[in-house]
Amino acid sequence: MKVGVFDSGVGGLSVLKSLLEARLFESIVYYGDTARVPYGTKDKQTIIRFSLQALEFFTSHRVDMLVVACNTASAYALDSLSHEAPFPVIGVITPGVLATQNKLSSKDASILVIATKATIASNLYAAKLQENGFYNVKSLATGLFVPFVEEGIYDGKPMQALLEYYFKGFESPNALILGCTHFPLIAPALSAYFGKDTILIHSGEAIVEYIQNTYHLSTHHILHSLEFFASDDVDALKHTAKLWLGNLYMP
Amino acid sequence: MKVGVFDSGVGGLSVLKSLLEARLFESIVYYGDTARVPYGTKDKQTIIRFSLQALEFFTSHRVDMLVVACNTASAYALDSLSHEAPFPVIGVITPGVLATQNKLSSKDASILVIATKATIASNLYAAKLQENGFYNVKSLATGLFVPFVEEGIYDGKPMQALLEYYFKGFESPNALILGCTHFPLIAPALSAYFGKDTILIHSGEAIVEYIQNTYHLSTHHILHSLEFFASDDVDALKHTAKLWLGNLYMP
Repeated sequence: MKVGVFDSGVGGLSVLKSLLEARLFESIVYYGDTARVPYGTKDKQTIIRFSLQALEFFTSHRVDMLVVACNTASAYALDSLSHEAPFPVIGVITPGVLATQNKLSSKDASILVIATKATIASNLYAAKLQENGFYNVKSLATGLFVPFVEEGIYDGKPMQALLEYYFKGFESPNALILGCTHFPLIAPALSAYFGKDTILIHSGEAIVEYIQNTYHLSTHHILHSLEFFASDDVDALKHTAKLWLGNLYMP
Repeated sequence: MKVGVFDSGVGGLSVLKSLLEARLFESIVYYGDTARVPYGTKDKQTIIRFSLQALEFFTSHRVDMLVVACNTASAYALDSLSHEAPFPVIGVITPGVLATQNKLSSKDASILVIATKATIASNLYAAKLQENGFYNVKSLATGLFVPFVEEGIYDGKPMQALLEYYFKGFESPNALILGCTHFPLIAPALSAYFGKDTILIHSGEAIVEYIQNTYHLSTHHILHSLEFFASDDVDALKHTAKLWLGNLYMP
C-alpha cells in the first residue's frame, strides 16, 4: 500500500517517523510545501488553495491513501481534500482527539491545546473534544515554537523565555495536545516545563493508532520505497529528514 | 511617478513608510507575497522564481520604477528582475552600503550586518562593503527576529533572551546594518542592547537617499494613490499597514 504524507514543510517528518516505526506501508511519498511554509500564519482560503494543489501532486503519484500531517491543513482543508480525492484522506485532528480520550481516565481532565494561530482560530480541537465530553479545555496559539524548531533551538535560554512567555499563568494540564507537527521536537522542553504528570499527545502516534483501528492494516510491512519531494530545494528537506529520522531514513 | 514596492510580506512596510515620509512619488503600489512569506529561509532559485512572478504583477500595474524592499529578494533576484523589467529596479543592498559609508568617518569602523539566513549566505553586504574599503565587517543571520516582529514581540524577556542568544560575544559595532525590513521595528531593542554609539542603518532611509541622489526626484509630491495587494488575505496586510504607517496610511 502506498501512502502520501503531506505537510507544509519539514514538520510532518515527525508524523512520517511514527508511520515508519509502525511499518504500516510498503511505499511512502512525502511532499513538503517548503517554498510556501508556514501555513499556520495564513488565511483559510490560501491554506485550502495550497492543499488542493498538493492533492494534484499526490494524485499523479497514485497513492492509495493521503495523510495530512500538517495540523493547519487538517483544520481547514480536510473537507475540500476528502471531497476531491479519489482515495481516503486522513487528517491529524480527529486521531489526536481520540488519542487524548484514550489516555485520560476522566472527562473532567484538564486539556491544553497548543498549535499555530490558524489551527487555534479554527477551534476544531476544542470543538471535537467537547463533542466527546471534555469541557475543561484551553487553547493557545504558540506559533513561535515553529521557527525555533526550524532553527534547531529546542532548549536553552531563548526556549525557556518563550515557554514562560506563552505559559505563564497556565497550570499544568492533565494532557497537552501538540497540535503542530513541529512540537514533538520540543517535547522534552515542554515536559520539563509542565512536569511529568502532563501527558503529551503526539500527532504521529495518534494517527498510527487511528489508521490501525480504522483500516486494520498490519504493522509488519517492509518498506520498499521512501521518496521525498518539496516545492523549495528538496536537498534541504532530505537533510532535515536524515537528522530527524535517523536510521529510519532511506534515500 | 508611480512606484511599485515589492516585499515578501509585511516587512517592506518599513521601507514604504520612509518613501511616504519623503514624498517622492504620486502613486504607490505595494505588493506583499504574504502567502509565501518568509523568503529568507528559502532557496535561491525559489526566491528568483517568486520575484519574477511579482514582476509580472508590477508590469501589469504599469509602474515607472520598482523598489525591492525585501533584502533577501534584493540579494538574489535583483539581476534577474533588472534584466526582465521595462523600468528601473532598485534593491536595498547598494543603498544600504552607501548609507553606511556616508555615516562612518573611518574605513576602520566596525560593521555588523544582521539579516536572514539567505541574505547572509549571499554575502552581498560584506562583499560590497569590502569593495568600498570596509574590511572590519561581520555578518550574522538573525532570522528569528522576523517571526518575533510578525507576532508583535518587540521587547520583553523573550526578545532579551534572543538578543543575548545571537549577540553574546559580539562587541558593539560602530554601525549595525539592519539587513531585513523587519528589523527597524526592533531598533529600540537593538539600540538598548548595543548602546547609543552604534549607528543603525535602515533600508528605508537608505533607499530614499539613494533614489534622491540617483534620480533627482523632488520631495514634495502629493500622494494621489496608495494601493495594497497581497497573495494571502489583503485585509491582514492592510491591518498591519495601518498599525505601522499611522497617519501616513491611506486606504
